[in-house]
Amino acid sequence: MSNSIPKNIYLTLDESAQYYECGFSCDNALILRIKDERYFITDSRYTLEAKELCKSHTEIIESANFIQSAQNVLEKLNVHKIVFNPQELNVAMYKKLKTALETIKCELIPQENFHQKLRIYKNEQEIALIATSQKLNKKAFKCFALYLQKILKKAPSEKQLHYQAMQFLSNFGKYELSFNPIVGINANGAKPHALPSSQCLLQKNDILLFDAGIKYKRYCSDMTRTAAMRGEIHFGKKQKFKNNKHQKIYDIVLKAQENAILKARSGMKAKEIDALARDVIEKSGYGTYFVHSTGHGVGLDIHELPRISRLSDECVEDGMVFSIEPGIYLPQEFGVRIEDLVVMKNGRAEVL
Amino acid sequence: MSNSIPKNIYLTLDESAQYYECGFSCDNALILRIKDERYFITDSRYTLEAKELCKSHTEIIESANFIQSAQNVLEKLNVHKIVFNPQELNVAMYKKLKTALETIKCELIPQENFHQKLRIYKNEQEIALIATSQKLNKKAFKCFALYLQKILKKAPSEKQLHYQAMQFLSNFGKYELSFNPIVGINANGAKPHALPSSQCLLQKNDILLFDAGIKYKRYCSDMTRTAAMRGEIHFGKKQKFKNNKHQKIYDIVLKAQENAILKARSGMKAKEIDALARDVIEKSGYGTYFVHSTGHGVGLDIHELPRISRLSDECVEDGMVFSIEPGIYLPQEFGVRIEDLVVMKNGRAEVL
Repeated sequence: MSNSIPKNIYLTLDESAQYYECGFSCDNALILRIKDERYFITDSRYTLEAKELCKSHTEIIESANFIQSAQNVLEKLNVHKIVFNPQELNVAMYKKLKTALETIKCELIPQENFHQKLRIYKNEQEIALIATSQKLNKKAFKCFALYLQKILKKAPSEKQLHYQAMQFLSNFGKYELSFNPIVGINANGAKPHALPSSQCLLQKNDILLFDAGIKYKRYCSDMTRTAAMRGEIHFGKKQKFKNNKHQKIYDIVLKAQENAILKARSGMKAKEIDALARDVIEKSGYGTYFVHSTGHGVGLDIHELPRISRLSDECVEDGMVFSIEPGIYLPQEFGVRIEDLVVMKNGRAEVL
Repeated sequence: MSNSIPKNIYLTLDESAQYYECGFSCDNALILRIKDERYFITDSRYTLEAKELCKSHTEIIESANFIQSAQNVLEKLNVHKIVFNPQELNVAMYKKLKTALETIKCELIPQENFHQKLRIYKNEQEIALIATSQKLNKKAFKCFALYLQKILKKAPSEKQLHYQAMQFLSNFGKYELSFNPIVGINANGAKPHALPSSQCLLQKNDILLFDAGIKYKRYCSDMTRTAAMRGEIHFGKKQKFKNNKHQKIYDIVLKAQENAILKARSGMKAKEIDALARDVIEKSGYGTYFVHSTGHGVGLDIHELPRISRLSDECVEDGMVFSIEPGIYLPQEFGVRIEDLVVMKNGRAEVL
């Protein structure tokens, strides 16, 4: 059985994994999971908080040499195989660790993204936390829409809007954001990850793309809306644009998004769900302007598994939470993206 | 000459390195520097902005397979050796890249932190940007002190203070922060990287540790002050505490910090500068409570070279910019840290 992968024996540096395992994380720690026990190896800056906040079954080890400390634990527990994520460990650390563990005859087993894989199924508590996170996120979208209504005639800059959006999203400092929100006016919405500009000013009848999320008890939310800057401004899905091309593209993206949500089923491959959205856009002739995947898992990280992409053979199952967010981006013109989070439940996608 | 390290031939994924080389960065790019030319390989989300913002001598390559694209460039240019940072590349990417480059007989040469090493000497323009960044940072410290004066009698929570500090630091959205600021009241100041608490309330005569920095045109600032919450609240270095132990510890840390600034010389080893601060604290009997290094380089990254640590044999030279920030942390009681940025100039440390 020398080729077997040991179960619940792994090491990780990742903060989400640290938190998931131990209930606390910091930016400089190596954790070992050996069956039911966790070893939180960190430097002296963090040991006080780690001791206060880590869950039971976690031993805190203060260390100026993580590799030596890990070696000591593994030797004491007689561990001869331990899993690591080759996408996480850098080459320098891997080499040092490998050399150290060779002296105690302990083998490093690479398993890509093993910890995200074990977090791919969310339990009821995690789903509830993501749902609350998204609910708070939606509230911020509402506040932001009201603000846009009031500020529109003053021609605010993208940068000003971005700042104000962050205030609503964080609820004035109460919540962390799950990523730097995107506020894209017209052509800037065609850059799927545009930085806010202080030159670009919002005008009546513009098309605004807004993509944002927060963290609630560490769990991320994520939503995108594209809205018409006229009439009663809102981030609902029914939008009425003055410009016919805006409306045409918007309607295609909405149809693609709704089609994927409606027809996604547990047991489908991720690429089949991607195709549910992509086919609508391709049939409309805009396939080359849908330049990213249909979605991504969301949890402790803003980008988790499953990847809802053209290339993904992963099977989507009940308990998985991911985004459905097709888009069309017309360079130098405008972009439309519509994104919701869904949880697979009783075989279908339920919007959170 | 098969063991020689090629000059100006390297690859990197790092955002600061991307920006330094090309004038633009994003969170998913591989750049190649081949002598005077740069190749910015990124995915379709970023190519529009990259084309707009990259400096001359940079070719933008849109790619869904960075390794293949890198291989194509290296093959075309007949490159047979290329430097990478083993602390940056993860094991999975390294293995794929190595396999790909073997087919074109191109060797990967590990050089730890090579890009930070080449950025260790700051030019006049960079020093001016860091100086401006720190000037703006100091302004925010002043605003925050005025706010503390006003709010003290309302017993604000650490979390509330943290939020308000971020408003001043960012100048209400104008600047990014170089790191999540630290606001530590009493015992929370003894956790060198404490998270702000909503339970911990500020009271008269408390001791407050505040560590913060912003980014100005991408260049970081960094400063820490520890202040007495009484009389006219300020973040100057002369502090008068009610509690005698606060005063005693504060005076030791201040003496250590000023000693290091006064006596640091170009040509010294980094560990000698560390010792200028550490010796003062050790002689006072608090050596075991100074749990970190005396300082770190600052530039595009908040932590750069040189490391001003007990272990560092690096030579400190004119043009280097780093922090001097000794501290004493008494668990469950309080912490004191005092930090300035200095640039080595005409052989001495000049405070920015």
